[in-house]
Amino acid sequence: MNILVINSGSSSLKYQLFKMPEKNPICSGLAERIGIEGSFIKHTVYIHNEKYSIEETGFISNHGEALKQVLALLTQGEYAVIASPDDIAAVGHRVVHGGERFSGPTIITDEVKHQIKRLFSLAPLHNPVNYKCIEVAEQTFVTAKQIAVFDTAFHQTIPEQAYRYAIPEWYYKEYSIRVYGFHGTSHKYVSEQAINWLDKKDSKIISIHLGNGCSITAIKNGRSIDTSMGFGPLSGLMMGTRSGDIDPSVIFHLMEHSGYTLEQLSTLVNKQSGLLGVGGSSDMRDIRKMVNEGDTAAALAIKLYAYRIRKFIGAYAAVLNGIDAIIFTAGVGENDSNMREAVCSELSYLGIELDPTRNTDYKGELKEINTTDSKVKILVIPTNEEYEIAHQCFGLLT
Amino acid sequence: MNILVINSGSSSLKYQLFKMPEKNPICSGLAERIGIEGSFIKHTVYIHNEKYSIEETGFISNHGEALKQVLALLTQGEYAVIASPDDIAAVGHRVVHGGERFSGPTIITDEVKHQIKRLFSLAPLHNPVNYKCIEVAEQTFVTAKQIAVFDTAFHQTIPEQAYRYAIPEWYYKEYSIRVYGFHGTSHKYVSEQAINWLDKKDSKIISIHLGNGCSITAIKNGRSIDTSMGFGPLSGLMMGTRSGDIDPSVIFHLMEHSGYTLEQLSTLVNKQSGLLGVGGSSDMRDIRKMVNEGDTAAALAIKLYAYRIRKFIGAYAAVLNGIDAIIFTAGVGENDSNMREAVCSELSYLGIELDPTRNTDYKGELKEINTTDSKVKILVIPTNEEYEIAHQCFGLLT
Repeated sequence: MNILVINSGSSSLKYQLFKMPEKNPICSGLAERIGIEGSFIKHTVYIHNEKYSIEETGFISNHGEALKQVLALLTQGEYAVIASPDDIAAVGHRVVHGGERFSGPTIITDEVKHQIKRLFSLAPLHNPVNYKCIEVAEQTFVTAKQIAVFDTAFHQTIPEQAYRYAIPEWYYKEYSIRVYGFHGTSHKYVSEQAINWLDKKDSKIISIHLGNGCSITAIKNGRSIDTSMGFGPLSGLMMGTRSGDIDPSVIFHLMEHSGYTLEQLSTLVNKQSGLLGVGGSSDMRDIRKMVNEGDTAAALAIKLYAYRIRKFIGAYAAVLNGIDAIIFTAGVGENDSNMREAVCSELSYLGIELDPTRNTDYKGELKEINTTDSKVKILVIPTNEEYEIAHQCFGLLT
Repeated sequence: MNILVINSGSSSLKYQLFKMPEKNPICSGLAERIGIEGSFIKHTVYIHNEKYSIEETGFISNHGEALKQVLALLTQGEYAVIASPDDIAAVGHRVVHGGERFSGPTIITDEVKHQIKRLFSLAPLHNPVNYKCIEVAEQTFVTAKQIAVFDTAFHQTIPEQAYRYAIPEWYYKEYSIRVYGFHGTSHKYVSEQAINWLDKKDSKIISIHLGNGCSITAIKNGRSIDTSMGFGPLSGLMMGTRSGDIDPSVIFHLMEHSGYTLEQLSTLVNKQSGLLGVGGSSDMRDIRKMVNEGDTAAALAIKLYAYRIRKFIGAYAAVLNGIDAIIFTAGVGENDSNMREAVCSELSYLGIELDPTRNTDYKGELKEINTTDSKVKILVIPTNEEYEIAHQCFGLLT
């Protein structure tokens, strides 16, 4: 069964084609700069463990055009992988916000589209473009099932005491103000890997997703019970460009006493803060280089970044009343062994003991990096949101 | 040595007079509704464990008038405790915000007054009135030393990784945006009691101040290393009327999409949230009554309140890498045994075990309420900010 996974951004469209239940995609690609000068598509086909890439340039005016070009790449030429659009059984769409309505993968109907539209104001940068891609996919892959997989869905199991803010109920009922959480597909994927690895009936897991966005989730018996991102993707951990937790008094103060506008402050905490704002680059690899060159701002950025993760590990250990395993995943989580070491240091009271040799010997597959005596397993697990989306679609259809 | 402690609010003036080093005040009182119709002063004198109270009504136009009346009560009539203002060796002023400049009790000079003035924008509701009271006390008690004891001072030992927000350094340097923390006098006082009680050289203590305002502090070897209130007194725990931690995205969203003004939202999270906003009353005793009558909103308020404290205990256990003791203090902390039980439940992974009998048997003096086997001591300690201020003044002068 061929499942095409689509992950759309405001000017980009990423895709992977899976022949389920195989885990490796048969092809993948990325259309960039859609609607902007310098558009291109990079398309890669995997044949017998070899990669063949094609890059096509030429202006792409919108997501519909992009998807037509993707279809051509899938069906025509030397590297065609399917004969016609009808060979695609389902298109799995990553949709960022599912509100309180969606707690799992959902076959897209007019009613579902209406609900996704209603959530535009909660995810103004993401849901509209996800919606648009659903509509163009419906026209391009007419016989395929269109399925939405929501970033928020995994967190719908979070109990009231963790998802409600301590403000009057009116704001929850009238404006849908609550904790939603994001990165759900990633947290679900890696925590299921961890549960298999632990081979334990009841499990207490903390999943730490450290990409450009960062979030941490407490997972009890496979269900999310608390997560660090809240109403939006701003709160919690320090990220590439986002501040993470910050006292809202700061916003009030800077608007009232220093003449900043709402928009400037939103830009500040969302796009100019985090590693970029403190250390000078949003990319942890750059920050590491700067630290090696003696840059004190970059060193502070790393200290803040690790310290906040440690606090959340502690908080979620309390929420879970203990921990069986912590998981590091995504760009920084998988690739920065120094960060893993900094996070795990001085958590011996929890029985967390990192093995420095194992830690630096991660090779892209699930690895246990704790000492043999460590009470808590420390796992590095590569995340794979595209495969997880295909997997959920496959599960829904079979 | 007579030390008069003054704690001023926008329309109130509380005072206690200590004959140091005695711990019990010789008199205390409160002027209320200063500058508002219905002003009064309630003055209480303690003689041989008996209390004698006088209440005087009549319009009090400003804090200077109030302090003159206090002086008359101290020096004249049946219950006079001193002969003249010169019998007061020092006036200890609670000053809310000391910024980064003040980390201990400070004799007030023109330069210190100038500094307190510079901090007006950081504590617009408190520092101006504290300042005014310093000026009237200088005129009323001409020969006394005037001493400032700052709410923020105890937290000046917090390290950079905990006091800096993950926003560009510019905002720290230019606008003084950082974590300051409050309730420092209370946290210092109760943690010193706890350290004496533990009789342990190195100590890891979590102090939980639950009054109308609430905050929690991680204290290592007597020094504050992290605290839940931040730039202002809004963040961290849920309080009587304050929301505690809330994703700033909520503020951005409500301003942008629902037409709320900055002022409305500041009022919302500072004055209409917390126990009041969720449960219907800012007073935990009312909330308890409502819960007993089956009120579900009040029950949710209690769940949110306890859950957040538990998360902070976990976070600070991580910061401290273990805990020797946790302290409950202030109104709710000292008087609500059900809340202490809810907070301590399901923290067995930390070795926290409450003894239910001891818990309900607190009688206003330091009490250990953990089981004999509990690895972590659980202490209830009555806070006493006024005595602590007198004690710090006394220490400075002797």
